[in-house]
Amino acid sequence: MAEREGPRPGGRSARVQASVHRAARDLLARMDRAEVTIPLIAAEAGVTPSTIYRRWGELNELLADVAVERLRPDMEPVETGSGRGDLLAWAEQYAEEMSSGIGREMIRDVLAAEGAAGPRRCCGYARQQIAVIAGRAEARGEVFPDIDTILDGVIAPILFRILFDEALGLERVGSLVAGVFATVERRAA
Amino acid sequence: MAEREGPRPGGRSARVQASVHRAARDLLARMDRAEVTIPLIAAEAGVTPSTIYRRWGELNELLADVAVERLRPDMEPVETGSGRGDLLAWAEQYAEEMSSGIGREMIRDVLAAEGAAGPRRCCGYARQQIAVIAGRAEARGEVFPDIDTILDGVIAPILFRILFDEALGLERVGSLVAGVFATVERRAA
Repeated sequence: MAEREGPRPGGRSARVQASVHRAARDLLARMDRAEVTIPLIAAEAGVTPSTIYRRWGELNELLADVAVERLRPDMEPVETGSGRGDLLAWAEQYAEEMSSGIGREMIRDVLAAEGAAGPRRCCGYARQQIAVIAGRAEARGEVFPDIDTILDGVIAPILFRILFDEALGLERVGSLVAGVFATVERRAA
Repeated sequence: MAEREGPRPGGRSARVQASVHRAARDLLARMDRAEVTIPLIAAEAGVTPSTIYRRWGELNELLADVAVERLRPDMEPVETGSGRGDLLAWAEQYAEEMSSGIGREMIRDVLAAEGAAGPRRCCGYARQQIAVIAGRAEARGEVFPDIDTILDGVIAPILFRILFDEALGLERVGSLVAGVFATVERRAA
């Protein structure tokens, strides 16, 4: 499992991984998902197909790995001056990104692989981002909901509706955020 | 799309569908999911593979159809004497079934097919069951949360945790149900 968490940066293994990931992303951008194959990715990345089979086993696993990597946050949550504002801004952006065509494809790829490692890493990324917002709020002495309450009360409905129904509009995302704050503020009062 | 909602009961098409579904379920019970193929299902069902290809297109679509059919509720929600009790009993059973090995496989099959029809039918089944409970509660003059609040506040976290984290325990399911009632009761007071 160490490899899934990323090999030693700069090593040969890390360079191979980066180039295979890049090749997969490029092909996914250029052609239909159903046409992407391991031999095509290998040719694009300049490695042999057996390098890919050895490391990832099968296409589903590689595409899940690529999707998880793309879902890794590349910035700190925007600062708005309050924990509530930060969470709202972050949740709105999350809902928009995940319900886009690319977002849906990434979620699907993550869920299509065997095992729970990929989905859990995605959940972990959301946790990390919310923890950053919570840390700032705490430093300002604000009341802030705990992370699991936010996962169940805000993130879960966003993803559930994308997967099983229709994506929530931003107004509804706003009322989910208001809901988790209402509970914690009532408790604090 | 009419066929996906089920052909005329008793007709030839309905008999073929029932026998293909039964064959797929039997094979899934006997062998590893990765070994199940359309030719095997066709042989088991006593139809030609082309009958299956013509109707379902590919294995993913057929398995999604079988999974959706298995997720269709086969009983009314248990009556406990109150809407809150009924919802709690139903949600606990739902959480247990969905987090079981078979439940996880069915969710995965439903999400693996192209298009949103299968997942939406699953969401529709949950809606129908909750509507039955809501109707009984209304007839008794009880305060009861609206269905979308229950989808977001109870069903969404149950499925989100199964897919992306760890399945929720029954205690947490109970507090999610309590949460949707707390909000609606406060509003009514």
